[in-house]
Amino acid sequence: MNRRLIINVLGKIMIVEAVLMLFPAITAVIYREKHSLISFAIPAAMLVFLGVLFATVKTRTNNVFARDGYVMTAVAWIVLSFFGALPFVFSGEIPDLIDAVFETVSGFTTTGASILTDVEALSKSMLLWRSFTHWIGGMGVLVFVMAVIPIASGSGNLQLVRAESPGPDVGKLVPKTAQSARILYAIYGGMTVIEFVMLSAGGMPLFDSICLTFGTAGTGGFGVLNSSVAAYSTYSQVVITVFMVLFGINFNIYYLCICGRIKDALKSEELRVYLGIYFSFALLIAFNIRNIYRSVSQCMLLSFFQVGSIMTTTGYSTANFAAWPELSRYLLMLLMCIGACAGSTGGGIKISRLCLLFKTAHHEIHKLLHPRSVSVVRFEKKRMDDGIVKTAHVYLMLYVMIIGISVLIVSFDEYDFTSNFSAVLATFNNIGPGLSRVGPLGNYSIYSALSKLVFIVDMLLGRLEIFPILMLFNPSLLKKYKIRKKAEVDE
Amino acid sequence: MNRRLIINVLGKIMIVEAVLMLFPAITAVIYREKHSLISFAIPAAMLVFLGVLFATVKTRTNNVFARDGYVMTAVAWIVLSFFGALPFVFSGEIPDLIDAVFETVSGFTTTGASILTDVEALSKSMLLWRSFTHWIGGMGVLVFVMAVIPIASGSGNLQLVRAESPGPDVGKLVPKTAQSARILYAIYGGMTVIEFVMLSAGGMPLFDSICLTFGTAGTGGFGVLNSSVAAYSTYSQVVITVFMVLFGINFNIYYLCICGRIKDALKSEELRVYLGIYFSFALLIAFNIRNIYRSVSQCMLLSFFQVGSIMTTTGYSTANFAAWPELSRYLLMLLMCIGACAGSTGGGIKISRLCLLFKTAHHEIHKLLHPRSVSVVRFEKKRMDDGIVKTAHVYLMLYVMIIGISVLIVSFDEYDFTSNFSAVLATFNNIGPGLSRVGPLGNYSIYSALSKLVFIVDMLLGRLEIFPILMLFNPSLLKKYKIRKKAEVDE
Repeated sequence: MNRRLIINVLGKIMIVEAVLMLFPAITAVIYREKHSLISFAIPAAMLVFLGVLFATVKTRTNNVFARDGYVMTAVAWIVLSFFGALPFVFSGEIPDLIDAVFETVSGFTTTGASILTDVEALSKSMLLWRSFTHWIGGMGVLVFVMAVIPIASGSGNLQLVRAESPGPDVGKLVPKTAQSARILYAIYGGMTVIEFVMLSAGGMPLFDSICLTFGTAGTGGFGVLNSSVAAYSTYSQVVITVFMVLFGINFNIYYLCICGRIKDALKSEELRVYLGIYFSFALLIAFNIRNIYRSVSQCMLLSFFQVGSIMTTTGYSTANFAAWPELSRYLLMLLMCIGACAGSTGGGIKISRLCLLFKTAHHEIHKLLHPRSVSVVRFEKKRMDDGIVKTAHVYLMLYVMIIGISVLIVSFDEYDFTSNFSAVLATFNNIGPGLSRVGPLGNYSIYSALSKLVFIVDMLLGRLEIFPILMLFNPSLLKKYKIRKKAEVDE
Repeated sequence: MNRRLIINVLGKIMIVEAVLMLFPAITAVIYREKHSLISFAIPAAMLVFLGVLFATVKTRTNNVFARDGYVMTAVAWIVLSFFGALPFVFSGEIPDLIDAVFETVSGFTTTGASILTDVEALSKSMLLWRSFTHWIGGMGVLVFVMAVIPIASGSGNLQLVRAESPGPDVGKLVPKTAQSARILYAIYGGMTVIEFVMLSAGGMPLFDSICLTFGTAGTGGFGVLNSSVAAYSTYSQVVITVFMVLFGINFNIYYLCICGRIKDALKSEELRVYLGIYFSFALLIAFNIRNIYRSVSQCMLLSFFQVGSIMTTTGYSTANFAAWPELSRYLLMLLMCIGACAGSTGGGIKISRLCLLFKTAHHEIHKLLHPRSVSVVRFEKKRMDDGIVKTAHVYLMLYVMIIGISVLIVSFDEYDFTSNFSAVLATFNNIGPGLSRVGPLGNYSIYSALSKLVFIVDMLLGRLEIFPILMLFNPSLLKKYKIRKKAEVDE
């Protein structure tokens, strides 16, 4: 393992995080929140100090293997989350460290699950930091850093992107990875600005517009009001609905559009399936809740918002969907698992991975019937090789296993199955609210510290798509590390 | 497709079912249930008439392909279930056809789920038929027929066994398939007799002993009392516990024991994992329910019984586990999915398939880290080729998908998620009782006809391990059938 490179990159990332804390710090100055200012200054100073120290570690070799990419990604996310949680602890606004880490991991992983019972009690700067973590985490922390400063050379960048990117396969926009990261962030930034302008132009307070735009862009779900988005105007709700759906689309599509290849963009299988599922589920739920609300338009508004929010794994709410009929509730649970497109800011299993799994299943059944037939699985016109298909299968297996084990540990708290199961789904798929006790009106504060740790791990597992975090627990990797260390000592 | 062969075999099977109905018919004579006697005589006559007609269809070729085996199995199970349901309808004891088919499919698939609110109201002969279907279905209807009469020649027998046997891989006992079937049924029959003797020797009424033995042997779960097994003596409960666990073990193990290869039998990975899971879950649940019951021994008795019953997918109960703490309830739900050993009479995903999936996942992660390493997945010392592994993965995918879709349709009935989800798990894994409304004190009568149909399909899908039933819905197969038909007309 290229440990020196990992430490070096970690150092750079920590410095970037310190710089990012300037944004909430400025907010603290504007709103004269003196106490918050200090709470950001201390962790920022720690980050700069350690970051500079780490960044001076020079790498001996530029070889970066897949496992280095995975480990680096996992370590980076954990370190960023830990330091990102400190302002909450220092300010005393979330005094418990586990709670603060929960909230920060929930932010960076764009989950949007909260342990806060009263969001409105937070200071402005803390609210902004919470929402800003969504925006940073949306496209990937490492991809973000990569877009700003050179972090690794050679194949290093690609291995990092591969470990952090959502979806079964990484489609690079342009040959150079760092260049791709910059284009990605240009699109991401552009869309963020448009949404912000549209929201504030519609009369939403400036501060709320910024926070909600961050929350939508990262498909996160943190808001600034206890009622999430329900209190804003219909116009704002429609804008947020549209942008949630837009941020759930594979960003390659936008790149194709910018390059003038709109026809190619519209031919995307993933896009078609994504929109198909979105509209059919939204209409079905709108029909299912027709007796609860007064008008058809209200049912449509609420259904399209909630379905968009859950499917893109944002997690905003404008209605207490935990009280909707069982059919709607279950459809939302299904959507929690399906998730958004690969290469978007959304979570879940991802549309493209599901398409791949369906296609292989169909292919295997065909082969079972016709053992001597020769055929291949194709997706987006590309031939899917055995490696990608196998990884998708293993992914599904681990996905089911992790849900099973997580619910098991959480069950020790003795809450009902619907709460536990939906809480695990909502954190693992990076959505935010679940059903029953963790529904839009509830929160995660009721759970024990052990359960919260499970949720924290689940959020990271979900965001980084299992493998990087798993690497950290891989005994053979640790064994190798020890042998290496021993060899180094022997030298 | 070798349609002539399918019809021919179907004819033979129907005649066998008519003969099997003699057993409840004799019971009807003994208990002087005149009305029941006629209710068995009519479907038996129909079966003989149609069976002889079909059996006269001569096959032109002995070629049997995998797809023929699958289709034959699926068709056989559906036809048997339909005719097996007629006695309930004719006697008026279960007047609704869907209900009667539900009960019969539940019997043959050894599920043990019931739509009856009062089991004790049934006549003795109907109760016996219900339990007897468990015993017939336990080892596979076709395997049973195969053990009695020659049904197909050449590779035909093997294709049938392959389509009907539970588990990822068929390990034949001896080279000849029909011979294997006979050995299997000798073991099965022997164990059945021992359990019957032990139960009746312990003072259980003769009739109850017969029915409960059938229910245990087939890991079915139909009883004769509304309280399932709770009303019987502790001795009886212990005997049933032991036999449930024994019938959940791969029958190859017993064959090895008979051959004197006990050492080999004990080395079985599947057996060790099976017993390991059984004892650890049972102890954990016993500990979890320690505050509900008076003594440690009672907790142990109840826990070991319930865990054995759910894990082997039998479904008997001696306690209302739906009222146990959430942790225990969830552990039981996990057990519902895990299931028993391959090659036993139990259902679920099967221990060996789970081992296979775990091993491949581990293997794939290792390959992700070391792309150039060469290694193979081994199970029970045998090298698992890519085909078996892929099929296991597709199986898991379809497994998750079918559960997802089933719960969706059942959700239209607007019962709670725990009921719906556990009902699907309990039918698909051939267990019987679920949780909440379908717990040990509840039953499936509350659901609509549509939901019952879903459960019926799920029970068949679960028992036949998805593929055979899926074949029936395969459009390419149907297309081929039409083309063939057209070609025949053209001749």
